[in-house]
Amino acid sequence: MYERIRREAAGANRLLAEYGLVILAWGNGSAIDREAAVVAIKPSGLPCGEAAPENMVIVDLAGRVVEGELRPSSDTATHLVLYQAFPEIGGVVHTHSSAATAWAQAGRALPVLGTTHADTFYGPVPCTPPLTGEDAGEDYEKRTGEIILRTFSGLSPSAVPAALVGGHGPFAWGKDALAAAENALILEEVAKTAALTLSIAPLTPPLNSSLLDRHYFRKHGARATYGQKREG
Amino acid sequence: MYERIRREAAGANRLLAEYGLVILAWGNGSAIDREAAVVAIKPSGLPCGEAAPENMVIVDLAGRVVEGELRPSSDTATHLVLYQAFPEIGGVVHTHSSAATAWAQAGRALPVLGTTHADTFYGPVPCTPPLTGEDAGEDYEKRTGEIILRTFSGLSPSAVPAALVGGHGPFAWGKDALAAAENALILEEVAKTAALTLSIAPLTPPLNSSLLDRHYFRKHGARATYGQKREG
Amino acid sequence: MYERIRREAAGANRLLAEYGLVILAWGNGSAIDREAAVVAIKPSGLPCGEAAPENMVIVDLAGRVVEGELRPSSDTATHLVLYQAFPEIGGVVHTHSSAATAWAQAGRALPVLGTTHADTFYGPVPCTPPLTGEDAGEDYEKRTGEIILRTFSGLSPSAVPAALVGGHGPFAWGKDALAAAENALILEEVAKTAALTLSIAPLTPPLNSSLLDRHYFRKHGARATYGQKREG
Amino acid sequence: MYERIRREAAGANRLLAEYGLVILAWGNGSAIDREAAVVAIKPSGLPCGEAAPENMVIVDLAGRVVEGELRPSSDTATHLVLYQAFPEIGGVVHTHSSAATAWAQAGRALPVLGTTHADTFYGPVPCTPPLTGEDAGEDYEKRTGEIILRTFSGLSPSAVPAALVGGHGPFAWGKDALAAAENALILEEVAKTAALTLSIAPLTPPLNSSLLDRHYFRKHGARATYGQKREG
Repeated sequence: MYERIRREAAGANRLLAEYGLVILAWGNGSAIDREAAVVAIKPSGLPCGEAAPENMVIVDLAGRVVEGELRPSSDTATHLVLYQAFPEIGGVVHTHSSAATAWAQAGRALPVLGTTHADTFYGPVPCTPPLTGEDAGEDYEKRTGEIILRTFSGLSPSAVPAALVGGHGPFAWGKDALAAAENALILEEVAKTAALTLSIAPLTPPLNSSLLDRHYFRKHGARATYGQKREG
Repeated sequence: MYERIRREAAGANRLLAEYGLVILAWGNGSAIDREAAVVAIKPSGLPCGEAAPENMVIVDLAGRVVEGELRPSSDTATHLVLYQAFPEIGGVVHTHSSAATAWAQAGRALPVLGTTHADTFYGPVPCTPPLTGEDAGEDYEKRTGEIILRTFSGLSPSAVPAALVGGHGPFAWGKDALAAAENALILEEVAKTAALTLSIAPLTPPLNSSLLDRHYFRKHGARATYGQKREG
Repeated sequence: MYERIRREAAGANRLLAEYGLVILAWGNGSAIDREAAVVAIKPSGLPCGEAAPENMVIVDLAGRVVEGELRPSSDTATHLVLYQAFPEIGGVVHTHSSAATAWAQAGRALPVLGTTHADTFYGPVPCTPPLTGEDAGEDYEKRTGEIILRTFSGLSPSAVPAALVGGHGPFAWGKDALAAAENALILEEVAKTAALTLSIAPLTPPLNSSLLDRHYFRKHGARATYGQKREG
Repeated sequence: MYERIRREAAGANRLLAEYGLVILAWGNGSAIDREAAVVAIKPSGLPCGEAAPENMVIVDLAGRVVEGELRPSSDTATHLVLYQAFPEIGGVVHTHSSAATAWAQAGRALPVLGTTHADTFYGPVPCTPPLTGEDAGEDYEKRTGEIILRTFSGLSPSAVPAALVGGHGPFAWGKDALAAAENALILEEVAKTAALTLSIAPLTPPLNSSLLDRHYFRKHGARATYGQKREG
């Protein structure tokens, strides 16, 4: 059962490997079926490149396995917190891609230094404070999701479809799991270019807000002009 | 119709992907037929690696679609401004390649730090000031072309076949679209090496002008000695 | 004879090449058969990608060749010191991978800047002082092993399965040779990300110890929850 | 005629492309037949990956074409100066590989920061001063060779088989053209790692001289122990 989300989650995990965002089993992707209230996610420890519809694990929104023999990803609780708080998203991914992870380890929000960033992220990609000793107990993965939510308070998850978890690494999401994987790729590219920008000119100011608006709304919202018209 | 420029534009777009200068649909290339006064350009949102002669869009110099079902690249107006101002060019490309984009985001012209640069660019590759709020309206892509022209005032587009748009990224051109794609590759390579040079020795001075002359004119102009003699 | 360790050592050497950790013959991997007290190791000068079970050299713990026509790796004595001091390890590898080597050349222990590090290394990866003139004589490779042991005094080789040799490069180990190769890959990835982190924020503090514990023990020890249950 | 040096030169040029040291036609390799006093070299403008024995150009030591329809590499005169001054070398290559070129543009000799460097280069890889306006005339490529010789005065070309030409890029050589290409690869790897080392610890001192000796003479000279015994 749940073929659509199995295919979508498996495809997103494989994309993470193809995009070069994960080595070994260092990432995970999931897709949600809102109607059935279940999520398909990669099993723990499986290399992303070996994901296939039939080896995805189906869990309910409390994290109980509904279908599958394998344990779900150890980060499952983080994905579930995001799905419950952000009703507009259909997929979530997590990676340890180098440049995005470096910004997360540095504890810095990724600033908007150019239109490449603005094409996808309507503002800085926030970085959570690191979790504390208290958060590091039993419910650690749930706390990871919750600190993302606290950091996003007032921010739209559609306008900024990714977060950096301080000292850890990036999570990204999207309307479906493939869009989430694509946003993780864009985040890595933008993070790499931002670090290089600051090595050339450490005091580079953020892009002015009219250009941020221009680029973001060229690709998003009712007045978008980028790409091809969708059939209606 | 317009087979030559369809083939040339498609080839240039695919080269951008093969050279690793674009991910996803982050770039575009075009070719002009000066006699027919039309341009072949990639459709908006199409990944560069999927470009083919039959999916190129043909537009006239006012940007009206002459042939094709798809919307042309959202950057079409910038290409058209460059074609109209620079009669000697036959192709234009735009990418978000990391190192060239980092220099553009840093708002810095790419300095001539070595002969590798001088072999292709006869002087620094200029960086435009960022567009302002006023420029970010309806005619944004046209304004992008115009700010390149203002920055090039007094500079020959053949001598320096690329520009950095501040806060945005590189445009490159050439006698045809394939040469434009090659210039975009050279720009990226030179930009990457320049950033590394300054990380080793932040105060590296520009190449002396006699070496700039020697290298540039070894490959360009009537007295060039590089490559093989063209049949005449 | 010694088929298991021949296969394992050959596989580890090929992994070093596939992971992009070695060029030319710049690395070596070995596996130990504790019962027979022999080690299979790559011959000196053979490119890692050409390793095969039949060209591995079998040496005893004193370094005498037991099987094979070729000279064993010039670093054999270092491997043997590690096997004798660390009874829990089954494989050792050595590379000159760029980022780990850069930390070794800088003479700096690799700090724990994030959970990616903590998932594999329970604390900083130590860097030995450089060997001195006296160490650089006949028994140089043995001295290299001994300075790793002195630097690890009080540290568990299972908790931190790698070391940086100051001015030289990384050694990594594991329960078998494939695990050693994987640890060398993780070390390189973490070393690269750490350098980028410090270029973004030079004063980044180490990860707090509760997060280090949380991540390390999520994957290691009796209470590990990562991956799939082993059959028992 | 001259089959051996045609094959060797073509193989070296293709290696430069395979090793990722050159893009487009940005490099060249040659091999010498000392007895016949001729050199096989890549034609000007040919991409290194397209080199084949039959398209190499044969020139004498004065640079006159002896066999071949195409113009030899524009850097031929530099190769010839090196062959004449360094009787022990059999091949020369030139690239614009990023990291080595960055050190050359920075005008800095590549310091010995670790044993990886010492395994191949017995001391810093020198960087020539940039050529001056006077040097940039007719005999520019010959002057490039001569400034390498002046910078090497007192240095053995076997002990340090490469040079950086200030503001330009690396030349490397070896007992044959394939060894020259391999030395160019090693130079690039060492140059990349050195830049990263200094970004981690800007004041890293050079390797102590006893370790430099130990590593260099492990691989070179009468008492070398690395690799397999040559049949005698």
